[in-house]
Amino acid sequence: MKFRIDNLQYCNWSRQIFEINREAKLDAVHVTIVYHEDYDELVLEIKKWEKLFEENSDLILSGKNFKDIDKAQRENKTAIFFGFQNCSPIEDDIDLVEKVHELGCRFMQLTYNNQSLLATGCYEKIDSGVTNFGRETIKEMNRVGIVVDMSHSAEKSTFDAIEISEKPIAITHANPSFWHPAKRNKSNDLLKTLSQSGGMLGLSLYPHHLKNNTDCTLQSFCEMTARTAEIMNVKSIGIGSDLCLEQPDSVVEWMRNGTWSKSKNYGEGSKNRPGFPKQPGWFKDARGFENLEKGLMKIGFSEDETNGILGNNWFNFYKNI
Amino acid sequence: MKFRIDNLQYCNWSRQIFEINREAKLDAVHVTIVYHEDYDELVLEIKKWEKLFEENSDLILSGKNFKDIDKAQRENKTAIFFGFQNCSPIEDDIDLVEKVHELGCRFMQLTYNNQSLLATGCYEKIDSGVTNFGRETIKEMNRVGIVVDMSHSAEKSTFDAIEISEKPIAITHANPSFWHPAKRNKSNDLLKTLSQSGGMLGLSLYPHHLKNNTDCTLQSFCEMTARTAEIMNVKSIGIGSDLCLEQPDSVVEWMRNGTWSKSKNYGEGSKNRPGFPKQPGWFKDARGFENLEKGLMKIGFSEDETNGILGNNWFNFYKNI
Repeated sequence: MKFRIDNLQYCNWSRQIFEINREAKLDAVHVTIVYHEDYDELVLEIKKWEKLFEENSDLILSGKNFKDIDKAQRENKTAIFFGFQNCSPIEDDIDLVEKVHELGCRFMQLTYNNQSLLATGCYEKIDSGVTNFGRETIKEMNRVGIVVDMSHSAEKSTFDAIEISEKPIAITHANPSFWHPAKRNKSNDLLKTLSQSGGMLGLSLYPHHLKNNTDCTLQSFCEMTARTAEIMNVKSIGIGSDLCLEQPDSVVEWMRNGTWSKSKNYGEGSKNRPGFPKQPGWFKDARGFENLEKGLMKIGFSEDETNGILGNNWFNFYKNI
Repeated sequence: MKFRIDNLQYCNWSRQIFEINREAKLDAVHVTIVYHEDYDELVLEIKKWEKLFEENSDLILSGKNFKDIDKAQRENKTAIFFGFQNCSPIEDDIDLVEKVHELGCRFMQLTYNNQSLLATGCYEKIDSGVTNFGRETIKEMNRVGIVVDMSHSAEKSTFDAIEISEKPIAITHANPSFWHPAKRNKSNDLLKTLSQSGGMLGLSLYPHHLKNNTDCTLQSFCEMTARTAEIMNVKSIGIGSDLCLEQPDSVVEWMRNGTWSKSKNYGEGSKNRPGFPKQPGWFKDARGFENLEKGLMKIGFSEDETNGILGNNWFNFYKNI
């Protein structure tokens, strides 16, 4: 088998981007469909997606489980799996976990950058870990089949989630902090525990998570991947590019500020560089997977390992949970 | 001046209860109108209140500031001030703080028992204090004129709120833990800091907060009040009875569990005693204020101090903020 999976994109979706993902031979993409939307707003987003599936049925299909990835490959399409970057669509209601699963949700972050009702985000001063409601929610996510995603969460909350969850969790889009100490990147200890628990890390190509940001080299990225494979089982490593193609800067402002602040927070950016950062030349979009393949082979990964990182590991993760 | 104020009731409102409050000569009551309701549900509650004000205009009036307490007294009515026991009506939207103020909200708890988006509740294992969104919200509550109420919050969160808030905060309904170590009751250190910052404590008559619960004696309650007045300035002490007259037990179950749990939490109750506890004989309803008056005088409080505790202190708090 040889699957290509990008386990996190948040693009301003259009036929053109679906075509790029096909050119990149992506069999599956985990797509962020909402950040801070509540349940009703989620339903509106899903209606938009129903239209996208209808209008682009030659390029994409709706993914519900691993079999749809297989199906997509056979039909030369990309399976789209829905995910949330914040838990706001379940509001304060445990029963909505099952409802969002029915609507197609397969990944949900317990927090974005701030404190949520479930756990603490990486931008809070103090991390109190998974809350009472968080424990209940993880149990329910396990039951219905939604993956706990801790990409934007604080460290203790992530350790808690690994311990509480009866199924492996994921960090769909982040990098190790040994390489680039961004707030969102993860410690060696955490990555080791994640790997030992059967969880997955999706390496991010978002410039704020890369050493030297936009100027990060392919070689540096692949070296980081090799060092990460010394900390984690190589089978626990995949890609979650965090590509935000064609999004206007107003979107990143909303991602960072939601509706909870009167003052402006620049998150990983700054006042002088408030918008989306520019992608590195070797990963302008998903067609960069080809460069990653060459780079990973060059750094010494076997073909099997490379195929694992570029898709098969995520496929197995989908299959096992 | 001689005002009688009960700064927390959550009754199943009817003409009969408004009459009881008039018999008790209450000039003002801070009324919990919502717990876990969101903004839209709050609006429905307020519509119900508009009808109550209309149908009982000879007994109650809508309170917006301290002048309405004065007005109520002159007209032999009770001024009703709206408050929330959870922050769910502002959802995750800072702009809703001003909106709920426009709808009449004058007190809002940053948390009920669990973690909220703003702070930590007293039933969580770890208290991370006031969150990023919490800081923004306190600033906005200060600006528009909503009192920060920390009755159900955890300790560090409460210390944080006192420090962050530019206006005095309130613990509208709780007792000192030296007297009865319930989770919801407060430490001496906290009470001292609250008093020094100009904040108010409303002593609770809810049996789970009382020494010996339903069997608590008036004398024990008044002795506790005297000891509290050695920790806090006596002018920082008032009453927040937490009376829940005529509420069915399903309401306390909902208060404790909201919609966030599949299993049942009994809060301050237990599996064998899941419902509302029975009030002590000397405080079955607000007419017990008369017993409190006698008891406080007997224990050695002056007439001025007694009147302060039974209403004037809350009046001054309303006046100053």
